[in-house]
Amino acid sequence: MRLSLVASTDPADYGFVHRIRTRFAETDAMGIIHHSAYVPYLEEARAELLAHGGHPYHEVRKEGVDFAVLELFVQYRLPLRFGEVVEVNVAVGRITRATFQVAYLLRVGDETRCTAVTVHGAVDAAGRATPLPPWLAAAAGPDRS
Amino acid sequence: MRLSLVASTDPADYGFVHRIRTRFAETDAMGIIHHSAYVPYLEEARAELLAHGGHPYHEVRKEGVDFAVLELFVQYRLPLRFGEVVEVNVAVGRITRATFQVAYLLRVGDETRCTAVTVHGAVDAAGRATPLPPWLAAAAGPDRS
Amino acid sequence: MRLSLVASTDPADYGFVHRIRTRFAETDAMGIIHHSAYVPYLEEARAELLAHGGHPYHEVRKEGVDFAVLELFVQYRLPLRFGEVVEVNVAVGRITRATFQVAYLLRVGDETRCTAVTVHGAVDAAGRATPLPPWLAAAAGPDRS
Amino acid sequence: MRLSLVASTDPADYGFVHRIRTRFAETDAMGIIHHSAYVPYLEEARAELLAHGGHPYHEVRKEGVDFAVLELFVQYRLPLRFGEVVEVNVAVGRITRATFQVAYLLRVGDETRCTAVTVHGAVDAAGRATPLPPWLAAAAGPDRS
Repeated sequence: MRLSLVASTDPADYGFVHRIRTRFAETDAMGIIHHSAYVPYLEEARAELLAHGGHPYHEVRKEGVDFAVLELFVQYRLPLRFGEVVEVNVAVGRITRATFQVAYLLRVGDETRCTAVTVHGAVDAAGRATPLPPWLAAAAGPDRS
Repeated sequence: MRLSLVASTDPADYGFVHRIRTRFAETDAMGIIHHSAYVPYLEEARAELLAHGGHPYHEVRKEGVDFAVLELFVQYRLPLRFGEVVEVNVAVGRITRATFQVAYLLRVGDETRCTAVTVHGAVDAAGRATPLPPWLAAAAGPDRS
Repeated sequence: MRLSLVASTDPADYGFVHRIRTRFAETDAMGIIHHSAYVPYLEEARAELLAHGGHPYHEVRKEGVDFAVLELFVQYRLPLRFGEVVEVNVAVGRITRATFQVAYLLRVGDETRCTAVTVHGAVDAAGRATPLPPWLAAAAGPDRS
Repeated sequence: MRLSLVASTDPADYGFVHRIRTRFAETDAMGIIHHSAYVPYLEEARAELLAHGGHPYHEVRKEGVDFAVLELFVQYRLPLRFGEVVEVNVAVGRITRATFQVAYLLRVGDETRCTAVTVHGAVDAAGRATPLPPWLAAAAGPDRS
C-alpha cells in the first residue's frame, strides 16, 4: 500500500475547491448518487486543479505524460442526492520522484459527505513509470518523502 | 439522416443473440435501468457479434480501423430492471462502401423491452472515413445500397 | 415512432444553452468522448432547462411525476474531445397531453458536433402514463398536436 | 477508517469467482479500462456471490435492506484492456452486527491486475443502519469482531 495521505474534513486544509452538480444519470435505485459516480467527480476536480495551476491535463498528456491511478480510497460518510451541488476540496501531497497523492473533501453546504485519497504515478505513452514533470515535482512540500 | 434500418420486434428477424445481466450501478432513482445504460449494451452485443464472426473488435482496431458511431436511435418500450437478463438480438444491414447499420431487439423472456438502430462508419486512426474491411463488405445482403 | 422534431443546427432556433466540460472518464480508446457519454449531457442540459424555468427536476419528482425517456435519436457529426467545453442548446417542442420532445444542438465554439432529439412521457410513481404538469403543458407552442 | 480486510493475491484465499468481459465503453483515452469502471465490476461480482448463496440482491432489497457502501479501497496493479475476460475472485470477511467487508482479486489468466476491499453497512429503506440479515450474519467466520 502506497496510500499514506489522510483526507482532512476541514476545508481549511485544502487550497482548491471545484463545484459539481450531481446528475440524474448518476443516481441509483436507492435514490442516491451511486458510489461509482464519485470516482469521476474526484478526477474532474483533480483536472480542474491542474488546469488552475496552468497545466491542463489534456496538455500534460500531449507532452507524453499520463498520471495513472495506482490506488483509490473513498469513505462515503453521507449520501449525495440528485440536484445537489458538491464542493470538492482538493489538495496534493506526498510527492515522490514518480508518484503523488491527492486528498479530497466533498461537502454540500457545511456537511461532510465524503473524503477520499488517490495515489498517482507518472507514466509515459507506453505505460512505463517516468519522473513527474518538473512543475509538479516543484510543488513538493514538507511531507515530500 | 442516414438511419434507414427498422428494428423488428420479431426475434426470428435476427441471426445473433447476446445475453447481458443488468447491473445495480446502471439503475437510477426511478428504480429502473437508466436510459443511458442501454447504449453500452448495444455496443457489447455488437462486439460479441463481430467476435462470433471471427473478427473481435480489439483485433479490428489493431488493423487500424475503427467503427465510429454516426447515428443512434433507441425506442424504450418497457423498463429494464436490476437483476434481469436481457437477450440482445442483433442484425447487420444496409451496408454501403463505408457505412453499415445494426438493428437491435432487447427482450426479457418473451417481452419486448427496447429496439434500437445504430449507424456506423469505418474510420482510420486519424478519424477519416475509410472503406469497410472486405469481410464486412462481403456480408452485404439484398438491401446493399 | 413518436419522434418527429428535427434538431436544427442553428443556435438561434434554441432558447436555452447549458455548458458542460467533458470529463476524462468519458473518453474512450479512440481518444474521443464515447458516444454513450452524450446521453447524460442531454439529460443534464434538459434538467438545467427545467430548473431555469422554475421547475427543478428533483422537485418535479417530489410531486410524483417522472419524465420517462421514450425515444432517443443522436447524430454524431464531429467528435468531442477531453477538456472541451460543450455548449448544449436545448428547445422543447411537440407537446401533447402526456408527451413532449426536446431538441439539442451541441457546439464547441462555432462548430456543430452533435444534434439530438429525445421524446418523453410523464409517468406517475408506478410508471403509468399521466398528464403533463400544467406548467409544462402551458409551454405548448404552435406545433402542439 | 473501518476497512481492515486485506485482499490476498492468491486465488486460493477466495471461495467464489465471477467472470466479466471488459466493454469498449469502459476504455479511456489512455487505451485501457478507466479506473472508475472497476467499481461496477466489484459490485457485479458481489451481487453474483449473493445470488450464488441463494440471496439475489434484488430480493434482499425487496425485504427492505440495502447494503450501503461505506468504504472502498482499490489497488490498480496492471491495466485491464478492452476485450479481456477478468476473473473477479470474491470473499466476505470481518462481519459485525451491522457491517461486513468484501475482498476482491482481479486476474486475467494468471496475472494479478487489481485487488480491492469494500466495506458495507446494512441500511433500511430510510437509510438508517439496521442489523445484517441473519443469513449474512451466520456467514461470520473466525475473524468476526
